Amino acid sequence: MENAGGNLQNFVVPPVEGVAGGGTGYGWNDGGLQCLSSFTGAVDPAKIPSADLLHVWCMPSTTNVGQQEMPRPLEPMSLLAARNERESAQIALRPKVSWGSSGIAGTVQIQCTDLCTSGGDRLVVGQSVTLRRVLPILGVPDALVPLDLPVCQINLLPGETTSIWLSVDVPAGQPPGQYEGQIFITAVRADADSSSNSVAKSEKYQLYRELKNCLDIIEAVNGKPFEEVVERTRSATSTLRRILLSPTFQEYYEENGSSDMMDEDNLTSISIHLKLSVTVWDFTLPSTPSLPAVFGISETVIEDRFGLEHGSEDWYDALDRHFKWLLQYRISPYFCRWGDSMRVLTYTCPWPADHPKSDEYYSDSRLAAYAVPYAPILTCSDTAKDSLRKEVEILKSKSHWQKAYFYLWDEPLNLEQYDLIRSMSSEIRAYAPDARVLTTYYCGPSDAHLGSSTFEAFVKVPNLLRPHTQIFCTSEWVLGNREDLVKDIVAELQPDNGEEWWTYVCMGPSDPHPNWHLGMRGTQHRAVMWRIWKEGSTGFLYWGANCYEKSTVASAEIRFRRGLPPGDGVLFYPGQVFSSSQEPVASARLERILSGMQDIEYLKLYSSRFGREEALTLLEKTGVYLGPERYTLDHTPIDVMRAEIFRTCGS
Amino acid sequence: MENAGGNLQNFVVPPVEGVAGGGTGYGWNDGGLQCLSSFTGAVDPAKIPSADLLHVWCMPSTTNVGQQEMPRPLEPMSLLAARNERESAQIALRPKVSWGSSGIAGTVQIQCTDLCTSGGDRLVVGQSVTLRRVLPILGVPDALVPLDLPVCQINLLPGETTSIWLSVDVPAGQPPGQYEGQIFITAVRADADSSSNSVAKSEKYQLYRELKNCLDIIEAVNGKPFEEVVERTRSATSTLRRILLSPTFQEYYEENGSSDMMDEDNLTSISIHLKLSVTVWDFTLPSTPSLPAVFGISETVIEDRFGLEHGSEDWYDALDRHFKWLLQYRISPYFCRWGDSMRVLTYTCPWPADHPKSDEYYSDSRLAAYAVPYAPILTCSDTAKDSLRKEVEILKSKSHWQKAYFYLWDEPLNLEQYDLIRSMSSEIRAYAPDARVLTTYYCGPSDAHLGSSTFEAFVKVPNLLRPHTQIFCTSEWVLGNREDLVKDIVAELQPDNGEEWWTYVCMGPSDPHPNWHLGMRGTQHRAVMWRIWKEGSTGFLYWGANCYEKSTVASAEIRFRRGLPPGDGVLFYPGQVFSSSQEPVASARLERILSGMQDIEYLKLYSSRFGREEALTLLEKTGVYLGPERYTLDHTPIDVMRAEIFRTCGS
Repeated sequence: MENAGGNLQNFVVPPVEGVAGGGTGYGWNDGGLQCLSSFTGAVDPAKIPSADLLHVWCMPSTTNVGQQEMPRPLEPMSLLAARNERESAQIALRPKVSWGSSGIAGTVQIQCTDLCTSGGDRLVVGQSVTLRRVLPILGVPDALVPLDLPVCQINLLPGETTSIWLSVDVPAGQPPGQYEGQIFITAVRADADSSSNSVAKSEKYQLYRELKNCLDIIEAVNGKPFEEVVERTRSATSTLRRILLSPTFQEYYEENGSSDMMDEDNLTSISIHLKLSVTVWDFTLPSTPSLPAVFGISETVIEDRFGLEHGSEDWYDALDRHFKWLLQYRISPYFCRWGDSMRVLTYTCPWPADHPKSDEYYSDSRLAAYAVPYAPILTCSDTAKDSLRKEVEILKSKSHWQKAYFYLWDEPLNLEQYDLIRSMSSEIRAYAPDARVLTTYYCGPSDAHLGSSTFEAFVKVPNLLRPHTQIFCTSEWVLGNREDLVKDIVAELQPDNGEEWWTYVCMGPSDPHPNWHLGMRGTQHRAVMWRIWKEGSTGFLYWGANCYEKSTVASAEIRFRRGLPPGDGVLFYPGQVFSSSQEPVASARLERILSGMQDIEYLKLYSSRFGREEALTLLEKTGVYLGPERYTLDHTPIDVMRAEIFRTCGS
Repeated sequence: MENAGGNLQNFVVPPVEGVAGGGTGYGWNDGGLQCLSSFTGAVDPAKIPSADLLHVWCMPSTTNVGQQEMPRPLEPMSLLAARNERESAQIALRPKVSWGSSGIAGTVQIQCTDLCTSGGDRLVVGQSVTLRRVLPILGVPDALVPLDLPVCQINLLPGETTSIWLSVDVPAGQPPGQYEGQIFITAVRADADSSSNSVAKSEKYQLYRELKNCLDIIEAVNGKPFEEVVERTRSATSTLRRILLSPTFQEYYEENGSSDMMDEDNLTSISIHLKLSVTVWDFTLPSTPSLPAVFGISETVIEDRFGLEHGSEDWYDALDRHFKWLLQYRISPYFCRWGDSMRVLTYTCPWPADHPKSDEYYSDSRLAAYAVPYAPILTCSDTAKDSLRKEVEILKSKSHWQKAYFYLWDEPLNLEQYDLIRSMSSEIRAYAPDARVLTTYYCGPSDAHLGSSTFEAFVKVPNLLRPHTQIFCTSEWVLGNREDLVKDIVAELQPDNGEEWWTYVCMGPSDPHPNWHLGMRGTQHRAVMWRIWKEGSTGFLYWGANCYEKSTVASAEIRFRRGLPPGDGVLFYPGQVFSSSQEPVASARLERILSGMQDIEYLKLYSSRFGREEALTLLEKTGVYLGPERYTLDHTPIDVMRAEIFRTCGS
């Protein structure tokens, strides 16, 4: 080997031909984002700009960012949000090279600042600004697993795109304005042995900086109005206390951070800077959703999966956590348990009406509707009947009674089942004549000849259930792509008699119609709510948010039930599947449901100014939604529509 | 909350209905492998049998085990292997529950023992038994990234199947017999802070056990034959030295392992035990492959990607490592660089014929054929011509000259290109009349009318190239599914004149025909060699093993060239993409090529006993391969065929 160079003189080294010299298409793939690297040799992430090591780009919340999603240019992220609104977007990352080991392309540190206005108003990271990693379920990006803030580290895999879900939750009292912040994304070394130390070290130092920031805020309040001073002090003090309680802080406090300042400057200089701008506008989404959307939570699943005894203190605790967690999605939860046939026990509050929790639940302004348990459904003892009467008598005197409904049977199929509904309804209305009974159905009874066609039999159902049902809740599946059939359904109802038309999606409709199945497009998920608003139903029901297949271990693999499309009945996952946290992990689909619920408030605002017809025109002319087979596949029209509502209603 | 139980008395708790009580299909998915867990509550992997935490099952090497591969029962792994053969299989793992954090389902420790016969013969783990993790490329399981042995840890992801590629390399001198060993798979805790410590701790202890084993081996040699004593001592001493040099060993040596023995016992008791049995039979694959399979390695790619100056010492070193690494796959490598049109410079040894390395390369018994550089191809100076003459004159006197060939042009397309081949060939044969020139082609020259059809023009090519080509290397793509056309090709050749028929696959043929594209079935990859053997060509060429798209960073993301099917021209990956190792990472496709090459030796052995016709019958009657559209999709027939050859030729 030593003489290799010498012998080479006699051997004739052919000239290097560059790009053309590699045969079949070599070097022809380079274009735009795929450009060659600016460096050669070993990869030291501490010395090379992170932009040379990985692609970072932004994607809208309606994109399913798969592992093979291809990079795009990095542009600043710009969001529009009302107060009391959550707006989300995604940050995609894909390694250009590897700087890690053990099959990992490399470790990336993500650090997010608060978002601030020039006037000093602030959306606080970790509270109003959150990051979650998008993990695949059956290969489809769906589970949103929380990341630590303000700084966290994630691993990237070779040849795979990873997505981070960013959400901004604007508090109802947030001052409108332009909020600016940054996300620093930095390739970092995660050495085999020192990794956990070095991770801890960087986290510690971030905490230290946080603390210094807080102190700066407090020190700079001189001359500010009293209210602002109080607010700033309160916010900073709370953070300060939290940080000082951290046992790992001591060493930096003594050193005054001098030794690590260099590292920090270096970090920022090589980081990828993602600018984040949020326009908070002067519209506050109503606390109570304009459209009551009632979603089932299976108590059976909670009991089985978390090993909870029905009625135990832990059981109440688990239901309480599920209820509160789902409320943030503008959803009105009800717990449910199936009986024989499709009898179903549903209740929004696990405590009886005379329990203090009852008022707390039913009076919550975020709850648009609540299910009152028809207790005798699963047992017909006198005790059960007494319990029902007592329950109704207490509730009907409350102001929240207008939110109450009874959901007794899921999709009755024959006259016997219709009779049972009638009988239950009679009993309820004997105690409270103004009680609302909700019945779901997608067809008429199989053993009655209500009309000349299946659809006519379906449309005539109110004739069989009047006055035993007030909320006629029909499957969107029935309509197919025939939006015009809505008028036939509505024509049969007597709104003056308190009759309402609600809708639901369950197994159907299927692709290409809007629904929440895994693998559908993001806009298809969001379009369920556009459809409801356009068709004009006044409420919505979904059968299950946690209806995974049976398991007796909280962290057991998520399996979908046999015979159901994937994702049907499953809108969030047990946190234990992904970490030691017991907080549910939302699906991207659930976030898109929330976005759709928020879109309804935007459309309602626009209708209030310009009338429903104009709002329908806006929905159609922007290309957002024209019908169950004609809605946008791309995100842009959604932003156009929202921006137009902001422009026309914002001042 | 305190009074919850009390109030509940009045509330009527409905009875728990069990499986039937969950609505739409709840509890109906359970069957066989998907059974409910034997435990409830928090998951402590140190206390729960690992079999309750994850599925482990075996899969053949021809299966592409995707992330959604569904679990099967765990059965012992049983392999048949000749001496000087590599036999592979896969171990699939999928979490049943999560016991990890940060989006990881959990960490699994994999520990592999040596494989031993009852007589004390041994296949040593880490040498003859290796494990590699199968990582996806463009979503297809393909890259085989080495795992540490005898013990390693990997992370499993929720809802994802992971596959481990196990290979047994039987040394040529290995005594036949039944070798037994075990693989222990154990779910382990990887706590946030102590993970790196605890990993190191368990690894250290495994090393300590290894050491003790080695000592046992040496101590037990009394009464054994001298040769065996020498062999055992050599093997054990080498391992012993390696382990003692580890700086982390000291503490266990002092303690004598007493404190951790309990943990170790506990580990074994909760582990999943996978029994591994290898039957080594009394057949030694010939060191020199019976079918010369010449594969291109792009020197351009090596230079660009690893930043090596052409002709520098590091350049020679890199080529040397590529050459040696590919030799283990029964492949005869040649380096290549494309010139104008499809001129190609090809050479197996980067050193000239008068360099000592030349003999080392060309005499290697594993090399079945080598390319001699036609140096003037890229420059036409007198120096280049002199160099060619000198090269040929040295080589033609050597006994390895019979392996030599000249590959001058890739797929000539017109008469001008044919003339250039003739001219170069004349020059070469002036120096050595018995030189072999190889020409690849898939059609006749576009500007000559050789026959009445495209196929006839193709078949008549030897008439144009005789005596300027000896190895007529045709694309398998030409045949389509018309195996019978082979006789037309062969009929045009003059074997008595030293003419040979070789074949190649490149972009074509495509699915469902055998080729090595990513995403094809594993048996489809392996079938390329079955096809060659059945059709009877006497050699094979493949254009590129490392022809990724251009990059100037060793660890850059693997990208395939535009216009090529994924995986075409890429049979291994730079190690740097997956770790700090510079050793290439094999694709599963490359392993299947090796398996196919080994199958040819099995078929040749069978032919030598029973005749080629009987061997053809065996290949067909087992269902392994009947034609380019009729080969097994399943692994079983392969094992049946191999077992039959073992049964009939084994004694």
